[in-house]
Amino acid sequence: MAGNPIAVIVAVGPGTGASIARRFASAYPVVLLARSPENYEAVAADINKKGGKAIGISTDVSNESSVNAAFEKINQEFNGAPIAAAIFNASTRPKRKSVLELSVEEYQNGFDVSGKGALIFSKAVLPGLLEHGEDNPTQSPPTLIFTGATASVKSNALMAGFATHKFALRALSFSIAREFAPKGVHVAHAVVDGAIDTPFTQGFIADWASEASISSDDIAETYWNLHQQSRRCFTNEIDIRPMMEKW
Amino acid sequence: MAGNPIAVIVAVGPGTGASIARRFASAYPVVLLARSPENYEAVAADINKKGGKAIGISTDVSNESSVNAAFEKINQEFNGAPIAAAIFNASTRPKRKSVLELSVEEYQNGFDVSGKGALIFSKAVLPGLLEHGEDNPTQSPPTLIFTGATASVKSNALMAGFATHKFALRALSFSIAREFAPKGVHVAHAVVDGAIDTPFTQGFIADWASEASISSDDIAETYWNLHQQSRRCFTNEIDIRPMMEKW
Amino acid sequence: MAGNPIAVIVAVGPGTGASIARRFASAYPVVLLARSPENYEAVAADINKKGGKAIGISTDVSNESSVNAAFEKINQEFNGAPIAAAIFNASTRPKRKSVLELSVEEYQNGFDVSGKGALIFSKAVLPGLLEHGEDNPTQSPPTLIFTGATASVKSNALMAGFATHKFALRALSFSIAREFAPKGVHVAHAVVDGAIDTPFTQGFIADWASEASISSDDIAETYWNLHQQSRRCFTNEIDIRPMMEKW
Amino acid sequence: MAGNPIAVIVAVGPGTGASIARRFASAYPVVLLARSPENYEAVAADINKKGGKAIGISTDVSNESSVNAAFEKINQEFNGAPIAAAIFNASTRPKRKSVLELSVEEYQNGFDVSGKGALIFSKAVLPGLLEHGEDNPTQSPPTLIFTGATASVKSNALMAGFATHKFALRALSFSIAREFAPKGVHVAHAVVDGAIDTPFTQGFIADWASEASISSDDIAETYWNLHQQSRRCFTNEIDIRPMMEKW
Repeated sequence: MAGNPIAVIVAVGPGTGASIARRFASAYPVVLLARSPENYEAVAADINKKGGKAIGISTDVSNESSVNAAFEKINQEFNGAPIAAAIFNASTRPKRKSVLELSVEEYQNGFDVSGKGALIFSKAVLPGLLEHGEDNPTQSPPTLIFTGATASVKSNALMAGFATHKFALRALSFSIAREFAPKGVHVAHAVVDGAIDTPFTQGFIADWASEASISSDDIAETYWNLHQQSRRCFTNEIDIRPMMEKW
Repeated sequence: MAGNPIAVIVAVGPGTGASIARRFASAYPVVLLARSPENYEAVAADINKKGGKAIGISTDVSNESSVNAAFEKINQEFNGAPIAAAIFNASTRPKRKSVLELSVEEYQNGFDVSGKGALIFSKAVLPGLLEHGEDNPTQSPPTLIFTGATASVKSNALMAGFATHKFALRALSFSIAREFAPKGVHVAHAVVDGAIDTPFTQGFIADWASEASISSDDIAETYWNLHQQSRRCFTNEIDIRPMMEKW
Repeated sequence: MAGNPIAVIVAVGPGTGASIARRFASAYPVVLLARSPENYEAVAADINKKGGKAIGISTDVSNESSVNAAFEKINQEFNGAPIAAAIFNASTRPKRKSVLELSVEEYQNGFDVSGKGALIFSKAVLPGLLEHGEDNPTQSPPTLIFTGATASVKSNALMAGFATHKFALRALSFSIAREFAPKGVHVAHAVVDGAIDTPFTQGFIADWASEASISSDDIAETYWNLHQQSRRCFTNEIDIRPMMEKW
Repeated sequence: MAGNPIAVIVAVGPGTGASIARRFASAYPVVLLARSPENYEAVAADINKKGGKAIGISTDVSNESSVNAAFEKINQEFNGAPIAAAIFNASTRPKRKSVLELSVEEYQNGFDVSGKGALIFSKAVLPGLLEHGEDNPTQSPPTLIFTGATASVKSNALMAGFATHKFALRALSFSIAREFAPKGVHVAHAVVDGAIDTPFTQGFIADWASEASISSDDIAETYWNLHQQSRRCFTNEIDIRPMMEKW
């Protein structure tokens, strides 16, 4: 018999991914995927210490073999458990540069994560999400969430690479949403419009006013609420910004 | 001293409005505005019986004097209480007809509600929302939610009237959102895409499958979650549809 | 027998409307509608002097009787001629103000033009456009163009009124486009994003660089090209901006 | 001294590409790029026979070395001529399949063309476009056009691959448009919404009514008109559909 449903989060770092991991760990064992163990070890330890259950697996989400190996481990560890929630939070960082300076390699690297990585992850989690949907049609339907950015809907000058990858991710999210909604899987795309308050961003934004940045814990709470929506109330896209953001 | 914060909902009927009223009544005294008392009396009685506090006021939202009179009553009844949440749920019904058959009067009537009504309501609640924001900056910032429809983002053939009014409402919502976010007011527009399961719609949709319709209670829960978002995580637009909806 | 096809333009002033009138006058007799004769007299005289044919009719586009009276005159003057092109170029001016300062009357006045006026004009011209389509299915199908603005797609703070009216106009345009395309009428909405170089704007924009503004003659040429599109290549929305515009 | 300005078109086949090549050949020597010579040979011969000038170069647009080699040939052949117009018309074909059946390889192949190919082509043509802009600031500013599809703005179920690639292309187009407009380069993205009437599509669409399909010659004419727009009237996005198309 399959185990209790789990949540799978990629990628986990010190910011949004960690907050999402903690929030979903209050209800499910969580699997944390990231390329480098240093990105998930502290979060996993913290969750386990507080009575939750978390495991981390070093995974390159842009590499199908790496992801498949991770999911074999997950199936063994959790006895083929269904997946209640899967969060795709991986991204490259935005870099401003002229399209004339943008190398094909860098352009491809972004697609490796936001395009191929998102597809590979989706294909890996959808069977487990579908299984959870069959077990549990009404309460907290299986949920797949993709984290987007301002660049998911606006492609500014000097942001050709980042915007391409984020537009691509949004397209993938919508197509999966439309294909799998009738099968009970809730797919949502979040346009995270603004800087997220993480150790990383705190370093380079001067005069950081809290209301000018998004709280990663609040993103996690919003994702949790998306997961709580019933089959009769699916939100497929949501925007998120701090009160001081211009849009 | 001002009273405890309240929630104000227009329009209340047997469907979404009633669900929203019940949900927000779990935290606040609620004021229910609708043209006809028969639209709010049963809901208000039910809330009061269950230990909440609800009053209904017969109001024509498209008429500034009527709305101002209602808010005078509200201020008296609740001792000038700030407003924690205001929900604009008024609408005309969609009617399919050629633009050649659409009378100027009918076209104006829809704007009276979704345009002028929404402006009049917004002007009436914003001072109370701003006041609540000053008292209570971080927990459940003051929230103004507008209920839109598929026609808010797609203007189909034979739907010129309804789409005009819903596009107009969305424009108003976004402008208010951008103006008042820096002052701590959270404004959200909901694209409710699909039929809502109400006594009215149950009558004309044959073979009603629950997963083909939106639950009004679930809309209310989603609105409540929008209200719970912090100043560091405002969602300004959300879509809502049942799992079987094509989009 | 009906006369040769005509073009009808509302509203005509010294800027875009005059340029459109001159451009379409190279192919059709043109009818210029504006509230005040001073808005069309010089343009009409200029067209007539140069060998074209233009008449102006003082018309309040927001008033159905006034528009109907104008079209009676048009039918008499042109012997019930079909309409090859109709351009809705009427608008109120954008004004920045808080939604708290926006009066219901001002809000209604904008809708009188961009909402009701556009509907009234559309209902008046569609029969003549349909007639032209039957006569002339392939060359320059009958064309109805609506002039929008940045505010047609973005509703900024302090622009609630203008954006509401422009969103409304866009909704009307799309619904008419979808209803009448299968009948051979080409309907297009132009998002004119930027300041237009007219005597009026020249007055208040300092250091006017020509490439920072849109040429009204170039808008007219673009509208003309829309009119030249065949039934097998309808453009329903187009954006227009000068090369220096940020968007 | 540099030669007269040229136009460069990728990819050229029997449909849209050939029509565009013929239209731009009326004003410029044209370079036709396609993977297989059989795709451009007949068109080039036809243009040359009729007094125009066309050369074809076998090029894999997704391969940077192949594109660079092609542009070395172009520079030799045309003596370093500036580029008046560049049209990116390459695409993979849409294929309906579940995201679960969509291989990473196929997903990558589409990005090779619509993502990497579009970037490689843009980087190759932008220097020549900028040069033309300096020579010729006002008449027919240098123009870069990308051909998109319905899937550029709507990501349907079973179309995850095609939509991803087309969303990506649109993002690239907008970023380049915003970066290079202030330098006088006109970049436009065309949402071609509907089947194009080509020898290929005629084969699989039964009961082909001409008004249900887009004419490739008419697309070419619309692209030509975009190219004619002045620096004071840039259109950055346009949609194109036949009159019978639902949208």
